Amino acid sequence: MRKVEMEQTMNKKSSNAQFQPLDSGLVPRFAGLPTFMRLPIAKPDEVDIALVGVPFDGGTTNRTGARHGPREIRNQSSLVRRVHHVTGISPFDRIRCGDCGDAPINPLDLNASLDSIKRFFAEIHILRALAVKGPVGFIHFDAHSDTYDSFFGNRYNHGTPFRRAIEEDLLDPKRMIQIGIRGAISDASNYDFARDAGVRIVFIEEFTERGPQSVMAEARQLVGENPTYVSFDIDALDPSIAPGTGTPEIGGITTREAQALVRLLDGIDIIGADLVEVSPPLDPTGATALAGATLMFELLCVMVSA
Amino acid sequence: MRKVEMEQTMNKKSSNAQFQPLDSGLVPRFAGLPTFMRLPIAKPDEVDIALVGVPFDGGTTNRTGARHGPREIRNQSSLVRRVHHVTGISPFDRIRCGDCGDAPINPLDLNASLDSIKRFFAEIHILRALAVKGPVGFIHFDAHSDTYDSFFGNRYNHGTPFRRAIEEDLLDPKRMIQIGIRGAISDASNYDFARDAGVRIVFIEEFTERGPQSVMAEARQLVGENPTYVSFDIDALDPSIAPGTGTPEIGGITTREAQALVRLLDGIDIIGADLVEVSPPLDPTGATALAGATLMFELLCVMVSA
Amino acid sequence: MRKVEMEQTMNKKSSNAQFQPLDSGLVPRFAGLPTFMRLPIAKPDEVDIALVGVPFDGGTTNRTGARHGPREIRNQSSLVRRVHHVTGISPFDRIRCGDCGDAPINPLDLNASLDSIKRFFAEIHILRALAVKGPVGFIHFDAHSDTYDSFFGNRYNHGTPFRRAIEEDLLDPKRMIQIGIRGAISDASNYDFARDAGVRIVFIEEFTERGPQSVMAEARQLVGENPTYVSFDIDALDPSIAPGTGTPEIGGITTREAQALVRLLDGIDIIGADLVEVSPPLDPTGATALAGATLMFELLCVMVSA
Amino acid sequence: MRKVEMEQTMNKKSSNAQFQPLDSGLVPRFAGLPTFMRLPIAKPDEVDIALVGVPFDGGTTNRTGARHGPREIRNQSSLVRRVHHVTGISPFDRIRCGDCGDAPINPLDLNASLDSIKRFFAEIHILRALAVKGPVGFIHFDAHSDTYDSFFGNRYNHGTPFRRAIEEDLLDPKRMIQIGIRGAISDASNYDFARDAGVRIVFIEEFTERGPQSVMAEARQLVGENPTYVSFDIDALDPSIAPGTGTPEIGGITTREAQALVRLLDGIDIIGADLVEVSPPLDPTGATALAGATLMFELLCVMVSA
Amino acid sequence: MRKVEMEQTMNKKSSNAQFQPLDSGLVPRFAGLPTFMRLPIAKPDEVDIALVGVPFDGGTTNRTGARHGPREIRNQSSLVRRVHHVTGISPFDRIRCGDCGDAPINPLDLNASLDSIKRFFAEIHILRALAVKGPVGFIHFDAHSDTYDSFFGNRYNHGTPFRRAIEEDLLDPKRMIQIGIRGAISDASNYDFARDAGVRIVFIEEFTERGPQSVMAEARQLVGENPTYVSFDIDALDPSIAPGTGTPEIGGITTREAQALVRLLDGIDIIGADLVEVSPPLDPTGATALAGATLMFELLCVMVSA
Amino acid sequence: MRKVEMEQTMNKKSSNAQFQPLDSGLVPRFAGLPTFMRLPIAKPDEVDIALVGVPFDGGTTNRTGARHGPREIRNQSSLVRRVHHVTGISPFDRIRCGDCGDAPINPLDLNASLDSIKRFFAEIHILRALAVKGPVGFIHFDAHSDTYDSFFGNRYNHGTPFRRAIEEDLLDPKRMIQIGIRGAISDASNYDFARDAGVRIVFIEEFTERGPQSVMAEARQLVGENPTYVSFDIDALDPSIAPGTGTPEIGGITTREAQALVRLLDGIDIIGADLVEVSPPLDPTGATALAGATLMFELLCVMVSA
Repeated sequence: MRKVEMEQTMNKKSSNAQFQPLDSGLVPRFAGLPTFMRLPIAKPDEVDIALVGVPFDGGTTNRTGARHGPREIRNQSSLVRRVHHVTGISPFDRIRCGDCGDAPINPLDLNASLDSIKRFFAEIHILRALAVKGPVGFIHFDAHSDTYDSFFGNRYNHGTPFRRAIEEDLLDPKRMIQIGIRGAISDASNYDFARDAGVRIVFIEEFTERGPQSVMAEARQLVGENPTYVSFDIDALDPSIAPGTGTPEIGGITTREAQALVRLLDGIDIIGADLVEVSPPLDPTGATALAGATLMFELLCVMVSA
Repeated sequence: MRKVEMEQTMNKKSSNAQFQPLDSGLVPRFAGLPTFMRLPIAKPDEVDIALVGVPFDGGTTNRTGARHGPREIRNQSSLVRRVHHVTGISPFDRIRCGDCGDAPINPLDLNASLDSIKRFFAEIHILRALAVKGPVGFIHFDAHSDTYDSFFGNRYNHGTPFRRAIEEDLLDPKRMIQIGIRGAISDASNYDFARDAGVRIVFIEEFTERGPQSVMAEARQLVGENPTYVSFDIDALDPSIAPGTGTPEIGGITTREAQALVRLLDGIDIIGADLVEVSPPLDPTGATALAGATLMFELLCVMVSA
Repeated sequence: MRKVEMEQTMNKKSSNAQFQPLDSGLVPRFAGLPTFMRLPIAKPDEVDIALVGVPFDGGTTNRTGARHGPREIRNQSSLVRRVHHVTGISPFDRIRCGDCGDAPINPLDLNASLDSIKRFFAEIHILRALAVKGPVGFIHFDAHSDTYDSFFGNRYNHGTPFRRAIEEDLLDPKRMIQIGIRGAISDASNYDFARDAGVRIVFIEEFTERGPQSVMAEARQLVGENPTYVSFDIDALDPSIAPGTGTPEIGGITTREAQALVRLLDGIDIIGADLVEVSPPLDPTGATALAGATLMFELLCVMVSA
Repeated sequence: MRKVEMEQTMNKKSSNAQFQPLDSGLVPRFAGLPTFMRLPIAKPDEVDIALVGVPFDGGTTNRTGARHGPREIRNQSSLVRRVHHVTGISPFDRIRCGDCGDAPINPLDLNASLDSIKRFFAEIHILRALAVKGPVGFIHFDAHSDTYDSFFGNRYNHGTPFRRAIEEDLLDPKRMIQIGIRGAISDASNYDFARDAGVRIVFIEEFTERGPQSVMAEARQLVGENPTYVSFDIDALDPSIAPGTGTPEIGGITTREAQALVRLLDGIDIIGADLVEVSPPLDPTGATALAGATLMFELLCVMVSA
Repeated sequence: MRKVEMEQTMNKKSSNAQFQPLDSGLVPRFAGLPTFMRLPIAKPDEVDIALVGVPFDGGTTNRTGARHGPREIRNQSSLVRRVHHVTGISPFDRIRCGDCGDAPINPLDLNASLDSIKRFFAEIHILRALAVKGPVGFIHFDAHSDTYDSFFGNRYNHGTPFRRAIEEDLLDPKRMIQIGIRGAISDASNYDFARDAGVRIVFIEEFTERGPQSVMAEARQLVGENPTYVSFDIDALDPSIAPGTGTPEIGGITTREAQALVRLLDGIDIIGADLVEVSPPLDPTGATALAGATLMFELLCVMVSA
Repeated sequence: MRKVEMEQTMNKKSSNAQFQPLDSGLVPRFAGLPTFMRLPIAKPDEVDIALVGVPFDGGTTNRTGARHGPREIRNQSSLVRRVHHVTGISPFDRIRCGDCGDAPINPLDLNASLDSIKRFFAEIHILRALAVKGPVGFIHFDAHSDTYDSFFGNRYNHGTPFRRAIEEDLLDPKRMIQIGIRGAISDASNYDFARDAGVRIVFIEEFTERGPQSVMAEARQLVGENPTYVSFDIDALDPSIAPGTGTPEIGGITTREAQALVRLLDGIDIIGADLVEVSPPLDPTGATALAGATLMFELLCVMVSA
C-alpha cells in the first residue's frame, strides 16, 4: 500500500519564492509544525510537485503500523536540507514544492479507502492529464515482488498490488523492473506471474554481483523515454538500516547503494513516485523514517533535474 | 475487540493431573513453548476452563497492534505461578485448564473474522449450552464505555461493541456495570445510549471516592445470581502501568485496585471472561502483557472458587 | 523554562465554527499535521486562547531535550477529544482556540532567546493588556521550587526562574503557592528565599496527608479573585508516569491527583498557563507527552469554564 | 542476592571535609566518573559508612541482569543531592561516606562468589566487630519472601537467601518482618517455613489496609533497640515504577509509600542495609536505578540520623 | 554455549505431509504458538531434522540473556516462509522437520546443565549413531575463536568451548575453520592454541579481502567429504545487524555475506548445526532473532539439498 | 565540539606496570568504576597518552545529548580488550595510558566552556610544548565539513569549528583532509570556504569508488611527516551503526571501513586525536558508544605504533 506519494505536476508558471523550506539558520529544526522537508502547506494546484501522505495500512496481513508513517517521515524530514551535495541541485530553487496533506482514508474499510485515495489523486492528476496515455513504466525497489494473487481470500492487500495494477492495465509489465527482491516465499506463484507477464526481476544476489550502475543501465533502457512511475519500498533496505517496517528481510541494500540507484534515475520521465512501508511503532530510533525522508529528497532531486 | 477469552465449561468429571503447568523447579520459566501460564495444549472438550487467544485488532481506528497481544501475554504468563497468595487457591488443582490455541481470524476482513470467531466459540459453547438462557449480566472494567454508534460509517469497531451487544440482546443492560470509565469523549452520545439503556457507569472519579469494596458491592447486587460475563480492558489500568495499548487514558486504576476489584467478583456466576487490548508493539518492557497475564490468573482464581 | 504556553485572550466576538478540531470520525487521529489538539493553525488575534509552543531548553544544567517537547506534545495531543467526561464542557464550543505556532528562539543564545520569547508573548499580551495591572498570582505544580539564585555563575537557568520573577515583580509572592515540591536539594537557600518572600510551599508529604481538596481550597483563598497564572511542570508527576523529563524525582503525584488539582482551579481568574519540561528523547513510549497533552486539555476546560 | 551494600562503621573521629559529593554548581551532573552519589572513592577504613557494590546475579533462576545493577545505580545516583527536603539532614555533613568499590565476585561460580563476597565484607566488619553479638534483627521490603528451600536442587539462589540466613543463625526470625510480600507462589512451603520460624509477613493487602505508619510501628517494636539489618528489594516497588528487575509483581508499593517506610526506620540501630535486584538490561529509561539510588539516599539519611 | 541445535537424522521413510508449517494464507503469522518456523511439535524420532532449543547461558562472563534466545528466535521465525528464492528449495517438501522442544538445563548449575544437554542430544544421536566414527569437521562462523583455556579459574565457559572440544577429540582441528574472527583479545593464547592445533583462522580482514567464494572454497576442501558440524555464532554478524548479543564486535560480516557463506556449504555432509548467542534483552527490535531465524532457514536448505 | 580527547605526551621514561587495564579474568567487565578501557585514574603528567572526556554539547543547534557521551563511552569501553588482533600491538605494554577525567565545562555558557576547556588542555600541552611549532595537519573523518560561517548569528557552534580553527591558524588547511563528507547542505558556502582555503574534501561517493587504501595514501602524502591531529566524528559512520548522534546522515562508512582507515594512519605523527558526537539519549542499545570506544582503541594502537 502507498504511504507517501510525490506527484509531479506540470505548471511551473509562477514563482517559487513562497515555496521554500523554513530557514534552519533562523528557525531551529526542532521548531515549527513538521511538514514534509519543512515546506509550506500548499494546495495541489499551487505546486509543481505535491508531497502527499497516504496514512493507510489496511491491507497488511501481519505487522501493521505504516499508517503512522507519513507523520513520522514528516517529523524526521526536518533534518533534510536544501542543496544536494553531489549534484548541487537545490530542488526548491527550481520548482514549487509543498506539503499537500494526507489523502483521505477510512481505517475500517479497505475498499472505501482505495476509492477515496483514488479520487484524491485524480484531482492532482487533472494537472497532468495529458501525460497519461496508457499504462506507465515502473521501477520498483523492494524486497518483495508483491505479485501474489490473494491472501485470506482477499485480492487487495499488501502482497498483491502490482498484480492488480498489471491486470488493470495501469502498469506496462514489459516496462517494469523490480530491484532488490529477496527472501523465501510462500509459493513460487508470484514470481511466475510476474515473469510470465514480462516483468524483469533483479534478485539481491544479481544486484550484489552487478552493482547499481549496471542494473540501472538496464532499467533505463527498459522504461525508455515514456512516462514512468517509481516506487521505493523501505524494506528494500537492509533491516539494520530500516527495522521499522512490517516485513523485514535480511540481506538488503545499503543506503549508499540506494542513493546510487535513485540518482541513476536521472533523465527518466518520472511522473510520480512513492516511498512506502515505514512503520514507526517498529522504529524506536526513527532511523527508518529518516532514511525514508532522505530518499524522498533524493527522488525529488532527480525528478527536478529531468 | 476480544483478544484473550477464558471460557468456563462444566464437565469436571475427569482428573486434572495432566493439566498442570510446567514445574518451574524443573523447567526454567524461560524454557519451553510459551503457552498460557505454561499449561498443556488442550482441546476445548478436554478442559473445564479453556484459555483461548483471539489475535484480532481489525476494528481499530487509531493505534493497532493488539493482534500480537495473545502471543505476548502467553510469553509473559511464564511468570505466573500456581498458588494465590491471599486465598491459597491453586486453580490447577481444582479444575482442568489448558491452552486451547487461537480463534481463527482473517486479518483482512472484519466481518469474516467476526463470523469465524463466533463459530469457534460456538463449539466451546456447546459444552455449556444449558447455561445460556438469555442475555447475560456484564461487569466491565475499562477506560471507555465503547457504546458509540459508529465510526467512519462502520458499526462494528473498537468503539461500538457493547452497543451492538445490547442491541442484539446478548447483554442485559439492566445487569451491566462499567467501572473505571474516563477521558474526554468525541461526543456524549455513547454515555447517553448506555444510560438510556440502563447501564450503570462508574466514572474513575466515583471509583476514587468510593473504593473497590463499595463499587463491587453494587456490582454484585446488580448482576445477582444469574450468569455474568466479565471483560477487563487493559486500558482500565493507568498508562504508567499499561502503556502498551491503543487508547491510553491518564488517571486510571492501579494494579492494587484492579486485583481488589477482580477478587471481589468472588461468588458471581461467571460464565466467561476476557482480557483485551494489550498491544505489544507499544509495550517495550512487556509490562502491559505481564499485568494482563497476572490479571488473567486472578480471574481464573475467582472463577474456580465460585 | 517554558515550553508550552496557553495564553488566554479576551475578544470572543466572532464565531468559533472554524476553530474546531479535526473530526476523528472522518479523519483518523494518525492523519494530518499534528497541531495542538488537532486544532486549526491560527494567528493570535484570531483566537480567544492561543496554544503556543516554546521549544527551548537553553537553561538546562543536566539532561536536555525539552526543546523537542512542543512537537511531541502536539503529536500525542491527537488523542485528545472534545468533551470533558466529568463537567461535560466542550471548550471548543465556547471559545475560539487554535495552534499559534512556536515562539522564536535561538538555540545557541539564552539571553537572545529570552528576549525573542518575551517579544513574541508581548504581541499576544496586547490583546489582554488591560488585565495586567501588576504582579500576578501564581499556582505552581512542580517537584522543584526553582528558586535558587544561580548555577555555574548563571542567574537565568532552569533552577532559578521564579526567584527572578519575584525579584522582577512579575509574580506576587504573597499570592504564590507551590504544590508537590520534593526531593533532596543542593542547599536550603532556595526554600529559604521562597519562604522569606512569603511563598507557600506544599511539600508532597503535606499533599499526601491533606489531599487535593484541602490543598486547593487553600490555594484558591491565597490567589483570590485577582489575575493568576498557572504553571504545571510535568516533573510534578511521578517518574513512573512521566519518565520523559530532565530532573525526575520519585514520590510524585499521580495523574488522578493531577486532574483533581487542575479541576479545582475552576473559578480562578487564570490569565495564562503553561505545561513544561516534557523531554521526548527521554520518553520512549510517548507517555509523558500524552500526560502533558491531556493536562493541557484539563487546563483549557477550567479556563473556559471561568 | 545482594547488589548494593551500605555498611555502617563506627569511627567518626576524623573530619568529613574530604568526603563530599562533587559540587553540582561547579561540575555538572553528567561529568566525572559515576561514583555512588558523586562521592569520593575511598577505602573502607577511611569512612563511617561505606557504599559498596556487589555485581552478582549468579543465583537467578529466570531473568538475569542484576550484575549490571551497581554500575547503573552509580550512574543514576548522579542525580542525588545533598540535603533531605523533609528532615533537612545532610548526611555528608555528619559522617564520612565514600564509594568503596565492588566486592569481588566470580561470574562463573556461585559458591566461590559467596566466599569472596563474605571475605570482602568481613574486612569491613572488623571495624564494627564489637557490634556483632549474635543474630540480628531484619526489616525486609520485598515482593517475595525468598524463603524457599531450593530450586533445581540448589539451596543457594535468589529464592532462598533468608531461609539459609535463618538456618545459619545470621538473622533472628523473631525479630524479622517482611513487608510488601505478594504474588502467586509456586507452593506454600516458603511462607510456611517463615511463619513457623516466627517471621512476621505483611502482605501488600495488609499494608494497603493499614498504611506505612501502622506497619512500621509494629516493625519498630519487633526489632527493638538491638542491631538490625535492612534490606530493600527493588521489586517491592510496583513494576510501573521499577520495571527493571528480574521478577516483577504487579500491585506493588509506590515510591511515596517506600519513602514513608524508610523514613520510619528513624531511630532503629541499623548496622547495615542493602538495595538489591536492579537489572539495567530490563530498565530502558533508567527509572528503576534512579528509584534505587534515591532510596539509598533515604536509607543513608535515617542511618545518619540515628 | 549452544542455543539452537538442528540435528539431522537419517530415517526419511515416512511421509512429510504432516510436518508442514502453518499455512500463512489461512493462519496469520501473528497467530498460534510460536514454534520454530511454525512447524508442528514433534518427537525427535518422528523427524529427519529436529529443531531444538538449548536455553542456556550459564557460562557467560559478562552480558547474559542468551537463555531467552530460543524463545525469541521461535517468535521471530514466524516470518520464515517455505521456498528459498534462489534455489527454489522448499525443505519441508523434502524432509520431515519439526520443533522438538528445548533441551533440559539447570540455570543454577553449569556442569549439571552440560550433562543433561549431552544426554538429551544422545537420544537424538541414537538415530544417526552409524555416522559418528570419530572427531568431526567443523565450520565455525564467529567473531571469537573461543579457544581460551579458562576464565575465573573455570574451564567450561563461553570463551573456551572449542578448546575443550578439541582436547576431548570431538572436533578434528585439522578439519576445522573459523571465519569472521576479529576484535582485540585479552591475550594471544587462544589463537596460539588454535593454530598450534592446526585450526584455520580466517580473520575478518582476510575475509573482506577474499570474499565468500574464495574462503568457502578453502573451507570445503578442508572438511572434505567426511561428517562436518556447522556453528554460526550470531556475533559473527556486525553489531548494527545483530545488537542483541553478549559480546558484540564492530566490523562484522553483513547478512548478504552470511547468506552467501551458508549457501556455499551446499554439498558438505552436515551432521548437525547450531545458531547461538542471540540475547533478546539486548535486542529491542527483535532484529537479531529475526536474522538468526532466517539463517537457520538458510542452514536448513543446504542441509536438505545435500 | 570535542567530546573525547586523547592527548599524546612524550615522557615515556617510567614504567607502565601500574597503568594496566583491570584484568578481565579476575574482575568481570561489568564490575568496577567505568574508566576509559578500564584503565587507572591518572594525572596528565603521569601518562604518555591521556584519555580525557569533554562532556559538552553547548554549540548544538538541533539534537543535543553528546554531553553524556564521555560517560557512556567509558561504560561501553569496558568491552575493550588488550591486544590488537591484526597487529598484535598491546598499547598498554608500550606506553603509560590512563583516564585523566573530564575537562571542566559550564553547561550554561558556551564561551566560558571554551575557555576552561582550552586551559585544561593547555596544562596537558605543557608536556608536549616543543612539538607545537605552528598550525598542524588535520585528518578528519566526518559526515559534515563543519566549515559553515555561523548559525543563528553565532560563530562558535557545532557547524563551524574547523572554519574557526583555520581562521585562527590552528590548522593548516593545505595539510587538511576531510573523509566521508555527505548529505544535503543548507548552502554551498561551507564547501566553498574549505576548498578556497585548500582543504581536500573526499565525499563518500569518491570514497566508495576508491576505497580506504587509495584515500589514505593521499591523506598520508598530504599531511607528510609533520605533526597531525586526527578527529573522528561518530556520524562519519552509517546511522545503522551509529544511531546515537545528533545529525545522522544515511549512506555512511561501515565499521570495517572505519577500522581500515584508522589503521592506515600508522606512521603519521599524531599529536592528538578525538572521537566526538556520541549522544547516548539517542542510542538505546549503546551500540554507538561501543563503536566509539572500539575506534578509540584503534586510534590508540596506531598512535602507539608510531
